[in-house]
Amino acid sequence: MSLYKLSERIFELEKQGRMIVKLNIGNPGLPTPALLVQAAEKAIADGKTFYASGQGEKKLLEKIASMHGAEVKNATVTPGSKWAIYGLMKILLQPGDNIVTPGPFWSAFELIAKNLGGSCKLVKTHAEDRWNFEPDALIEAVDSKTKLIIVNSPLNPTSTEYDTKDLRAVYEYAQDKKIQVLVDEAYRDLSFQNTDLTHYEEYVNVTNTFSKAYCMSGWRAGYLVASEELSKKLVELNQITFTNVPLFTQAAMLAGLENRQSVTKATRDACASRLKMAEEVFDGIEYVKPDAGFYMFLKCPGKNGGKVAEAALEKGVAIVPGANFGGYNEYVRISLSHPEAVLQPALEKVRQAMDENG
Amino acid sequence: MSLYKLSERIFELEKQGRMIVKLNIGNPGLPTPALLVQAAEKAIADGKTFYASGQGEKKLLEKIASMHGAEVKNATVTPGSKWAIYGLMKILLQPGDNIVTPGPFWSAFELIAKNLGGSCKLVKTHAEDRWNFEPDALIEAVDSKTKLIIVNSPLNPTSTEYDTKDLRAVYEYAQDKKIQVLVDEAYRDLSFQNTDLTHYEEYVNVTNTFSKAYCMSGWRAGYLVASEELSKKLVELNQITFTNVPLFTQAAMLAGLENRQSVTKATRDACASRLKMAEEVFDGIEYVKPDAGFYMFLKCPGKNGGKVAEAALEKGVAIVPGANFGGYNEYVRISLSHPEAVLQPALEKVRQAMDENG
Repeated sequence: MSLYKLSERIFELEKQGRMIVKLNIGNPGLPTPALLVQAAEKAIADGKTFYASGQGEKKLLEKIASMHGAEVKNATVTPGSKWAIYGLMKILLQPGDNIVTPGPFWSAFELIAKNLGGSCKLVKTHAEDRWNFEPDALIEAVDSKTKLIIVNSPLNPTSTEYDTKDLRAVYEYAQDKKIQVLVDEAYRDLSFQNTDLTHYEEYVNVTNTFSKAYCMSGWRAGYLVASEELSKKLVELNQITFTNVPLFTQAAMLAGLENRQSVTKATRDACASRLKMAEEVFDGIEYVKPDAGFYMFLKCPGKNGGKVAEAALEKGVAIVPGANFGGYNEYVRISLSHPEAVLQPALEKVRQAMDENG
Repeated sequence: MSLYKLSERIFELEKQGRMIVKLNIGNPGLPTPALLVQAAEKAIADGKTFYASGQGEKKLLEKIASMHGAEVKNATVTPGSKWAIYGLMKILLQPGDNIVTPGPFWSAFELIAKNLGGSCKLVKTHAEDRWNFEPDALIEAVDSKTKLIIVNSPLNPTSTEYDTKDLRAVYEYAQDKKIQVLVDEAYRDLSFQNTDLTHYEEYVNVTNTFSKAYCMSGWRAGYLVASEELSKKLVELNQITFTNVPLFTQAAMLAGLENRQSVTKATRDACASRLKMAEEVFDGIEYVKPDAGFYMFLKCPGKNGGKVAEAALEKGVAIVPGANFGGYNEYVRISLSHPEAVLQPALEKVRQAMDENG
């Protein structure tokens, strides 16, 4: 069952009245910060409820561009980073083409590639290497049909960061071979090391979302920073699909970026404190210590992540089997997506499910 | 220049500080009604800012389904009707396939079909027939590669309604041949005759938007009512693209549908009163009297819609050349998209542009 089928099934169970603690969804489980909400409400009150540019509002584009060392012509506001990923693949891939990405990975990459008639070549990495990839192994997977390399750091589902040197090696290879790279840094602002945003360079495109550090998951807010040519094509696609991200949503996004340090710190701190608690619950379980919020990718003692996820769901807690992240069947991914009061008993049920299926 | 390139160019001019009265955009130019805004704000206050179902919320789906004589399994909430159209074509069309629609038409149909590697077969209609189509002519255009017939009534850009008998003939043909039809009734609730919403039947899918009658253009709110199979595929596409329509947007949509008569009447009345004014300004110009808000499709005395649109833009008023609606080069489309105080002088400038290029 895919990440999304699972998610839809849980929404179904909830519609039927079942209470499920959703640790399957990549959501910080915090309300959208008040200053973002206020910016949106002010925009609505100011009449910003009309059709708008498919690229985005100038001030927001300027802010996004400046954060990545790019220009306004390189920035496009999108309804989530997922749309940026879909749009970029829609532009770059023809049927039969492929993308290359290290695994474990966010399966949306593969679902999107397949939906567009392409495929996803996964280069598996291992817990022993802290889930780092070998640049040579990644490069070896690139063939004449490869149109995009995706690197997601910090990584969903492990919350580990790739080695900067390894990323650099991939960027330089891609620039040399004129292959597009997409850096998905959805979790960058949740990095406990507070690592920098990726600088835009030719062939090194960047996407980010407001769903995680800015607690705007349901609003659908993200962006792509890319070449002018790719950006123009994305805006054209936006115009014939969803048209525009609402202006009031863009107002909230801008308020978020203008207060980036304080807003993201609050989310990061919540993640750090939940992780500390979770580490106690999962004492003795194998996992690589996360560099960022808010996932844990845990090796199940019984080596059957699917069985553990089913057992947890029976107990009222939804988590995702590792099979969904590129065939890591021994693992489960847990989102630390609720405040401690809800999270602690839910995690204990997951631990029970692990121990009972050990 | 396509509808969207024009629109983006005007946003560009505005970013540069030019004042443009935008009669090129299909927008009622009224604030979102307070009760809809309040419903959204209450939802935000209630914490409805998280990821949600890619199909939509149960209560909203039930309401939409009941309005079209369908079931919840047939309804999907979309970010505008344009997404429903894109999604349906994405599901139905393979490269080389086509759609059939009467012209003049909303050019998004063709832009979407082309973007997906397909094409659009236009069956031209004429002002003398009040822009009605001949069912036999439409059917004749259908070939083995036709995967969808689209009928948009009331029609963008003419605001005329198709004859019910003609529509019925197309539905029955499609059901007989198992070809999907999409009824785009974006302007149905602006029909001065207050004609009924289309009843869902197998092969007769319906899309609608909240951009027009509900004054929610920038929010991106719409839906598709379709077979269970198509609906499931659309939800899958939603999940790997924009994820969900925000729950607070859905709350506004539900409030709108629950107050459909009063909310849409206010917009309809505004349209009727603006149309009356516009008819005075364009006295002597050839056009078919609209059955609904809020477009006028005017034949330029000089038979050069492109030239008139350019001249109007010089005067600070954006309108769309008829070439954008299927090669109706003698025409221009005007959206009555502002309250009278702004609209009247803008329309007079358009009239001047017509007279100066007559």
